[in-house]
Amino acid sequence: MTDTGTTHGPVGSHTDLLAAYSLDELRERHSAKWREYPPEVLPVWVAEMDTPLAEPIKAALVEAIGRGDTGYAVAGGLPEAFAGFSARKFGWRPDPTGIRLVPDVMAGIVEVLHLVTEPGDRVVINTPAYPPYFYWLPRIGRQAVLNPLSLTARGFRLDLDALEREFAAGAAAYLLCNPHNPTGLVFGEDDLMAVARLAERYGVRVVADEIHAPLVYPGARHVPFGSLDAPAAARSIMLVSASKAWNLAGLKAALAVPGAEARSDVTAIDVEVSESAGLLGVIASEVAFTAGEPWLDELMAGLTANRALLGELLAEHLPEVVYQPPQATYLAWLDFRALGLGDDPAEWFLRRGGVALYPGPKFGTPGCGFARFNFATSPDRVSAAVRQMAASSHRQGARGMIRALDAL
Amino acid sequence: MTDTGTTHGPVGSHTDLLAAYSLDELRERHSAKWREYPPEVLPVWVAEMDTPLAEPIKAALVEAIGRGDTGYAVAGGLPEAFAGFSARKFGWRPDPTGIRLVPDVMAGIVEVLHLVTEPGDRVVINTPAYPPYFYWLPRIGRQAVLNPLSLTARGFRLDLDALEREFAAGAAAYLLCNPHNPTGLVFGEDDLMAVARLAERYGVRVVADEIHAPLVYPGARHVPFGSLDAPAAARSIMLVSASKAWNLAGLKAALAVPGAEARSDVTAIDVEVSESAGLLGVIASEVAFTAGEPWLDELMAGLTANRALLGELLAEHLPEVVYQPPQATYLAWLDFRALGLGDDPAEWFLRRGGVALYPGPKFGTPGCGFARFNFATSPDRVSAAVRQMAASSHRQGARGMIRALDAL
Repeated sequence: MTDTGTTHGPVGSHTDLLAAYSLDELRERHSAKWREYPPEVLPVWVAEMDTPLAEPIKAALVEAIGRGDTGYAVAGGLPEAFAGFSARKFGWRPDPTGIRLVPDVMAGIVEVLHLVTEPGDRVVINTPAYPPYFYWLPRIGRQAVLNPLSLTARGFRLDLDALEREFAAGAAAYLLCNPHNPTGLVFGEDDLMAVARLAERYGVRVVADEIHAPLVYPGARHVPFGSLDAPAAARSIMLVSASKAWNLAGLKAALAVPGAEARSDVTAIDVEVSESAGLLGVIASEVAFTAGEPWLDELMAGLTANRALLGELLAEHLPEVVYQPPQATYLAWLDFRALGLGDDPAEWFLRRGGVALYPGPKFGTPGCGFARFNFATSPDRVSAAVRQMAASSHRQGARGMIRALDAL
Repeated sequence: MTDTGTTHGPVGSHTDLLAAYSLDELRERHSAKWREYPPEVLPVWVAEMDTPLAEPIKAALVEAIGRGDTGYAVAGGLPEAFAGFSARKFGWRPDPTGIRLVPDVMAGIVEVLHLVTEPGDRVVINTPAYPPYFYWLPRIGRQAVLNPLSLTARGFRLDLDALEREFAAGAAAYLLCNPHNPTGLVFGEDDLMAVARLAERYGVRVVADEIHAPLVYPGARHVPFGSLDAPAAARSIMLVSASKAWNLAGLKAALAVPGAEARSDVTAIDVEVSESAGLLGVIASEVAFTAGEPWLDELMAGLTANRALLGELLAEHLPEVVYQPPQATYLAWLDFRALGLGDDPAEWFLRRGGVALYPGPKFGTPGCGFARFNFATSPDRVSAAVRQMAASSHRQGARGMIRALDAL
């Protein structure tokens, strides 16, 4: 911490949450972000934030530890807490009695696809796609059908014609990631309604990964898929969690939320699955959804500033990089193709710049030449990362020129 | 707590850990044990203990929360910590570089069976069996083959002849639970060597659930299956965790530990699986295995006393119940058949005695007429549970007599 104590007083500036810890303090963390690479590497890869926990979450966790409350998880008040948050934040209140606890959103997707599709079924995903989809769909005997987002002059967008072709070709389900990781797209209500109509027409079940829904910036609006007035929306199942917005990924709690007509599919999730969630995740998530909005507002102010800062830094130091500021998430999907760093620019920046981005090719073929940058850290570290990337890339430029001269 | 503070000073008597919290304090817990039934029910069912966390574990967790260390899990120092604990406790040091992190022992069993068996393969389990085996084996397309333990005058034991018949009939794997839940059996080295010889002869892979290994009472000795000098032991894979012995089930961390020749099978566990473990579970487990032995010794002293107390209470109040004190675990597998309470005595005690035991039939057919009693609580509560069970059972006896008279 920048102060010497272990508690956090009232915060003044909107970057305090993101700058609360020094680099040395962050290096004490045991998490993947801080342990995967040597300490001299600046990590901006996996979706963890460098923030302290929200005070009410911290207090609830310390209390749980004090009472030895570390046994098996049950959902408790979490479904009700999420229903209230969704009503306030998104204007849609799901029925909490139909909601079920799962260990994380990916595990929830696996469970739901297990219940609503058959082995060998085709499941459409949009690429670039969250890397674990590529592991888990084949792992449970489902075939991932890749539907690339279109890259237009105004950024990525859903290719509804291609989506219809995949639905018509016999897809059983569509795993919609909204807001979309890694592009930060928030799909508009018109696109979502078009998806719902196609899903209805071709009998495709929509399973929506809405893990990033609390992290939408001003100017965009998250529409829960199940809130749409459409039969396919009523039959859809959403997976939600406090894990991304309140930085609780390692505590293992998420929820499967049914549309109005999907209740029996979600309540079929076995208690063995719910009991494999994490109890401290349940406790922390309930507090996040009931008392975590002031912290979230403060976080979003800091992320909004960093989102702009990243654009300014790239424009100054790496103007060849194409950056479409995300409408949601603290993840920037950066197009490095003009720099000629090959399919995996993250590898270049790791080896030569001492910065760890998330490699684009792990998100599928459309990720070649791209990398994902996590700006949920202090402005100083965002700046340092971009400067180190730029320095390493300019050395590449210099070397490229030398090679070109040698070849004359 | 029995004192008023939130910290625990030095402990005097061997039952302090088990009596540290009052019933009202325990009812503040959010865990399955305390939330599944109404507050007037005394819960002695699921395998959670009523203890406070070990001081070094508590301190490590509070520190992690203070540094916002709640991102994705990596194994970190946990494999090395377990290897050291296993060397000190069991005289066998596995190679930590071959060990992989999994979210819990059941998830680890699922992963390992996925990697070393094929869909449709037969997997032998001993009944009575840990109930989640019955859900997860079919869930991953493996066929559970039931091999009942023999009930002898000296208690349960492995039926090696029947096991050989199942192996000869084409089993792919044997899921050995040692120490055994729910009977508390600790299989002797002679039995384990016989298993290893049979496994070698019939080409059966041994997967050993050793989650209860730290909880062995004086007089028995846990032999890690992989430590045996036998080819099938070298090819075996063990699943271990600090979750039972230090009461960390809700924190989600366990390890897959290969025998000397199974390294490549275990290291094939995907990083996606390891990252779905819980980070606070990793942090707590590492401390448990490195600094948790004094607490464990104190716990075992308390459990030893409760194990004897339960016998005395049953002899006095429910002499018809057959109780074979477990060689390991804080679980008593009680035979209520002489009481005539039907297949599910737990249902009777829940409805009429206000005590929640774990229903025997959930452990398979040999569990009919049995129930599992968790004595990891205060002596007072062990006593209250037995007295309430006895009172409800005597009412049954009275009613049985009345019905008998009516029938005359």
